[in-house]
Amino acid sequence: MGGTDQVRGTRRSPAAANGGGVTRNINSDNTVINLDHGDPTMYESFWRKMGDKCTVVIKGHECLSYFSNIKNPCWFLEPKLEESIKSLHGAVGNAVTDGYSIVVGTGSSQLLQAVLYAVSCDQPNQINVVSPAPYYSSYPEIIDLVRSGLYKWGGDAHGFDKDEPFIELVTSPNNPNGVIRGSVVNRDGGILIHDLAYYWPQYTPITSSLDFDIMLFTASKCTGHAGSRIGWALVKDKEVAKKMIKFMEVNTIGVSKESQIRVAKILQVVADGCKRFGSPDGDNFFEFSKSLMSKRWEILRETVKKTRMFTLPKYPLQHCNYTGDVTQAHPAFAWIKCKEGIEDCEKVFRGQNILTRSGRRFGSDPGYVRVSMVSKEEDFDMFIERLSAIQSFNNGDGNGITNGNVNGNLD
Amino acid sequence: MGGTDQVRGTRRSPAAANGGGVTRNINSDNTVINLDHGDPTMYESFWRKMGDKCTVVIKGHECLSYFSNIKNPCWFLEPKLEESIKSLHGAVGNAVTDGYSIVVGTGSSQLLQAVLYAVSCDQPNQINVVSPAPYYSSYPEIIDLVRSGLYKWGGDAHGFDKDEPFIELVTSPNNPNGVIRGSVVNRDGGILIHDLAYYWPQYTPITSSLDFDIMLFTASKCTGHAGSRIGWALVKDKEVAKKMIKFMEVNTIGVSKESQIRVAKILQVVADGCKRFGSPDGDNFFEFSKSLMSKRWEILRETVKKTRMFTLPKYPLQHCNYTGDVTQAHPAFAWIKCKEGIEDCEKVFRGQNILTRSGRRFGSDPGYVRVSMVSKEEDFDMFIERLSAIQSFNNGDGNGITNGNVNGNLD
Repeated sequence: MGGTDQVRGTRRSPAAANGGGVTRNINSDNTVINLDHGDPTMYESFWRKMGDKCTVVIKGHECLSYFSNIKNPCWFLEPKLEESIKSLHGAVGNAVTDGYSIVVGTGSSQLLQAVLYAVSCDQPNQINVVSPAPYYSSYPEIIDLVRSGLYKWGGDAHGFDKDEPFIELVTSPNNPNGVIRGSVVNRDGGILIHDLAYYWPQYTPITSSLDFDIMLFTASKCTGHAGSRIGWALVKDKEVAKKMIKFMEVNTIGVSKESQIRVAKILQVVADGCKRFGSPDGDNFFEFSKSLMSKRWEILRETVKKTRMFTLPKYPLQHCNYTGDVTQAHPAFAWIKCKEGIEDCEKVFRGQNILTRSGRRFGSDPGYVRVSMVSKEEDFDMFIERLSAIQSFNNGDGNGITNGNVNGNLD
Repeated sequence: MGGTDQVRGTRRSPAAANGGGVTRNINSDNTVINLDHGDPTMYESFWRKMGDKCTVVIKGHECLSYFSNIKNPCWFLEPKLEESIKSLHGAVGNAVTDGYSIVVGTGSSQLLQAVLYAVSCDQPNQINVVSPAPYYSSYPEIIDLVRSGLYKWGGDAHGFDKDEPFIELVTSPNNPNGVIRGSVVNRDGGILIHDLAYYWPQYTPITSSLDFDIMLFTASKCTGHAGSRIGWALVKDKEVAKKMIKFMEVNTIGVSKESQIRVAKILQVVADGCKRFGSPDGDNFFEFSKSLMSKRWEILRETVKKTRMFTLPKYPLQHCNYTGDVTQAHPAFAWIKCKEGIEDCEKVFRGQNILTRSGRRFGSDPGYVRVSMVSKEEDFDMFIERLSAIQSFNNGDGNGITNGNVNGNLD
């Protein structure tokens, strides 16, 4: 979702990635760097350092039943996962859990669909689902995939002016551009779904403990465990939660127990460690990850500045209740704008064997691209190296790319 | 699916399960036995006996990425799971895998939806999905949940006579009644989806290695690991497989890696052990499970016979290519028919605190119920005990249930 990230169409061979040779590759290394999707492999080094603290052992006879807890309306939610979710939100202070139902999902994409079902299944008419551009590129596809009669993608929320019920997806911090958001349509008759995949201290200052009606989170972007496919929803209205549970039952009859057990352990380790700052063990996950994101952004900003070809969004300095510092956001994606006159920013990067996602995909301007900032270190380093090389060209030292077909606007 | 089994509405308090006191409870023990759904906890004892053979250990830094194998179009399929699926089908001889694409899903329910999407997304009109009654009770709900414009539930295949494309779900052995099935509509223009959740040696004689276009399987009913939510599809047409993969990407961005790794290990242990018959280690899973199912069915048939109130389907003796024996089916569910004149068979069982699923739910006659045969041993034993008690009443020994509101037809 805002958090998880569709990966379709992002695996390309180096040949395909050359994109028809729009620009000559300035690197001797032809390796394609895929920063199109937000695969959070950056966090691997932290978890490796943690050694056996998060190791799970599951025996052959365990977890056979469909059921996790028949006393919970969400009967497929592992009690330990529920505990550790509460514990983590409590320790970070980013969301209220008291009085909320927790619904677990196979990633937060599935939970978004569960919410859409829950809030639309008793409505007389098909409901428009809107989100302000630039919006998460997968929303339109998730919403319209099977052409539901309950809801449909209604496009950019800025242009929504129909006098009828609507659903607004509020992604905050926003994917792709990292901005903190509120509702845009902002009138009665709207149901708000808050996609808070990135509302964690490594990405943005935690300014308050949120208490919206429907809040979606995912382990993928919180701790980096994307392969586990674990998301959770905090839902104020018990009836909405019940309908979401029904959706989960029909769609996949619950959620992998193995993943839940493992993510429960990981979230608890994060929760336990995250109140200790400056520990010599370095076991505060958010301290580690915030420091890493901060360094990457510093390097990116310096490099981008030198290129004189791109610009990056600026984020306000804010007090983070979690760290106690005044800090700015370090989003999981860089929302890069090419300088005026370059119409297709994705092409520029593709010419350097860097796969990014065009602004067009987010209902926005192809002069923008979204670039993952949570990749492995070697990919990030190579990205910065190639970005610097674009700078060389721009400075006219003759070592740069030819402008080829890039609209003749590279200079 | 035919294999997995929807669990909604099956958790009831003993009070609710009394169903308004339709019949007086003849048991001093008020425990409700829930045999409404097919929770395969019967297999736990086998896996316990296997000790550490199937134990999986997953470290904190493993499985972070969304990707399992970027060289496979099904990029979220763990290579070890693919291997063990092929290995198991090869060892059992129930399905051909050569030349098939394997698509993994969060249970086979999700894969059914992926297939429906794949075969209907390029069609000009909404397609009817049919299955002959009695059909798996969750099909209508899975198909119509979000009111897709691509497909809709078209009801009992026996009554389908429209001259237009259709999709037929062929569940074989069938859930609820254990019968081996072929297509019923049986004319051009139909797309067949074979739901083969129960086509394993413990349930039915394996008479051939099937090679249908689209075949669905699930770990839940094969090995009993329902909590893992792992299903797989064997798909002949690569384009259909590609579209299914797209559905999986949009619906849940792949499938839990932890579950895949664990189920890969379990299937491999089953495959390795299942060619050794009569081993003193007792490590042939199908030998164990077939023997257990066979005993349960023998006890059930004897008990049912004594009651003179119910009947059970008869299954033909057939040669099983896997065991080499001539044997009959021992389905995962008993499809029990009340004697003539009892209109609501579910009520009869509910009066004994036994939750079953009414024939009505399967598009069939409420004179039938479906009863799980794969429950824990204590539940099965208690079920048989209570069934025998119904017999006592029927024999007029005065120790039985009152006929209450059960249409006055209990005697």
